[in-house]
Amino acid sequence: MLKPLGDRIVIELVEQEETTASGIVLPDSAKEKPQEGHVVAVGNGKVSDKGERIALDVAEGNRVIFSKYAGTEVKYGGKEYLILRQDDVLAIVE
Amino acid sequence: MLKPLGDRIVIELVEQEETTASGIVLPDSAKEKPQEGHVVAVGNGKVSDKGERIALDVAEGNRVIFSKYAGTEVKYGGKEYLILRQDDVLAIVE
Amino acid sequence: MLKPLGDRIVIELVEQEETTASGIVLPDSAKEKPQEGHVVAVGNGKVSDKGERIALDVAEGNRVIFSKYAGTEVKYGGKEYLILRQDDVLAIVE
Amino acid sequence: MLKPLGDRIVIELVEQEETTASGIVLPDSAKEKPQEGHVVAVGNGKVSDKGERIALDVAEGNRVIFSKYAGTEVKYGGKEYLILRQDDVLAIVE
Amino acid sequence: MLKPLGDRIVIELVEQEETTASGIVLPDSAKEKPQEGHVVAVGNGKVSDKGERIALDVAEGNRVIFSKYAGTEVKYGGKEYLILRQDDVLAIVE
Amino acid sequence: MLKPLGDRIVIELVEQEETTASGIVLPDSAKEKPQEGHVVAVGNGKVSDKGERIALDVAEGNRVIFSKYAGTEVKYGGKEYLILRQDDVLAIVE
Amino acid sequence: MLKPLGDRIVIELVEQEETTASGIVLPDSAKEKPQEGHVVAVGNGKVSDKGERIALDVAEGNRVIFSKYAGTEVKYGGKEYLILRQDDVLAIVE
Repeated sequence: MLKPLGDRIVIELVEQEETTASGIVLPDSAKEKPQEGHVVAVGNGKVSDKGERIALDVAEGNRVIFSKYAGTEVKYGGKEYLILRQDDVLAIVE
Repeated sequence: MLKPLGDRIVIELVEQEETTASGIVLPDSAKEKPQEGHVVAVGNGKVSDKGERIALDVAEGNRVIFSKYAGTEVKYGGKEYLILRQDDVLAIVE
Repeated sequence: MLKPLGDRIVIELVEQEETTASGIVLPDSAKEKPQEGHVVAVGNGKVSDKGERIALDVAEGNRVIFSKYAGTEVKYGGKEYLILRQDDVLAIVE
Repeated sequence: MLKPLGDRIVIELVEQEETTASGIVLPDSAKEKPQEGHVVAVGNGKVSDKGERIALDVAEGNRVIFSKYAGTEVKYGGKEYLILRQDDVLAIVE
Repeated sequence: MLKPLGDRIVIELVEQEETTASGIVLPDSAKEKPQEGHVVAVGNGKVSDKGERIALDVAEGNRVIFSKYAGTEVKYGGKEYLILRQDDVLAIVE
Repeated sequence: MLKPLGDRIVIELVEQEETTASGIVLPDSAKEKPQEGHVVAVGNGKVSDKGERIALDVAEGNRVIFSKYAGTEVKYGGKEYLILRQDDVLAIVE
Repeated sequence: MLKPLGDRIVIELVEQEETTASGIVLPDSAKEKPQEGHVVAVGNGKVSDKGERIALDVAEGNRVIFSKYAGTEVKYGGKEYLILRQDDVLAIVE
């Protein structure tokens, strides 16, 4: 299990096979990075200047939209995840 | 529904068909990005160093002017939105 | 009406027709941006780290000098305004 | 009168006609910017994070040395002034 | 023993011999830097603005994933370590 | 007298005539800037966020080593001084 | 004696004569800067926002590893020292 630190969260990417209008399957490098995913783990929050933890606003299971190119890709257990900071999450999709 | 985080807000863009003096409809990439929109959702505010939420000054339904190129475009439910930070809002139009 | 947010203010620009020594009226792009204007609206102030609003030092009606190129130009109701942060105001002219 | 804001001060520049060793009066652009001046107005100080004004250390009438190229030149009432932040003042000359 | 300071931690790198598809062993400079390691020592934490130590979230023995290229490589006692700040640790692998 | 502001100090430079191995006196521009000097005046300290002055650690008469190229050169009363921030002082030589 | 200020420390460098595999002694500029040294003096600590000194974690006599290229080289009494900030110290070697 990946346990993110501080204000970081782990996102599970939904990879979709992409086909252009002309029916050609695009190789990986030509696909736009995903902007949506599911939160699979959240950190314990950052410590404020007052020494208290600030709990995160996102929770496990949330479907979120995040900035393109934000975060770091990590492969773990054969799956690909994205670890990013909560501040890179634009909105929760409800 | 898009639920923005922290000090972010969701703006609904008003797309207008644009025609030049010579009557030619401009393709998307030649149009200037909009500077005005309606607030459709607001975040719960940032947490201050004292650990308290600072509520936003803009509210759902406000018509706002914001910095050109600010924020991130998001397509959701067939519509295009802009998610930006409240600090990118220049003024509320009343 | 334009209601600026936080520490922003709205400035009404005084446009003067400019003529060079040789009598030629300069096109817009050759004119230096104005450095002076009247304050037509002020924000409600920024929220301090202690969670209190810090009221602005400039007020509606003030004539101010501000940094060249500061702020964002906005057209509203057929008039041109400049929205800038109070910190870009150098001095009040009394 | 120019009333500077916050931690800004207004400096009156002492322009001296400059002549090179060969007796040629230098045009404006070749002269080095002045590094010395008299304080003609001071701001009311910045507001600290605690919400209190921090009074300035320089006062009207002080003769000061300041960083070359610091601040913004302003023409007012036919005279040239420099508006700069107190932090750009290196020392008071007593 | 290496005793890291503040919010730094010492990571023991797991070096793997890498062979390309064609069977050629890659020289060091062509190998990608490792992204995973074991924590062998942690600092005593940073001092907060309030003057208190903020203990680290990672502990000796943790297996961690960290940003590629983060930290500084150090050779000590014939082994290679990486010293990085806790903030460069993305997640603990449990 | 030069009275520095805040956390600034005035350093008196010790100029030494420099001769290369071949006996040639180097012109000014080829000499390395001095790294050592005597403190002739100190500021009253910066105001902390709590609104209190933080007295300086260096005092008049101290012989100090400071970062090459730090600070601003000032000519005053026929002598050359360097005004720099205390933070540019590396060490006091005792 | 060199008495560093604030969060700075003085490091005594251990210079080793370096010989390449072919037996050629390398001139100074080709040698890599040392990454290890002994602490010979420590500052009195930085003043926190609360106005209190934060004592350093390193002490005289510590053997430390520090970032390559960190700090400033100083010659004093015929010896070469490095003055750097404690934050550039990666770890104490025990």
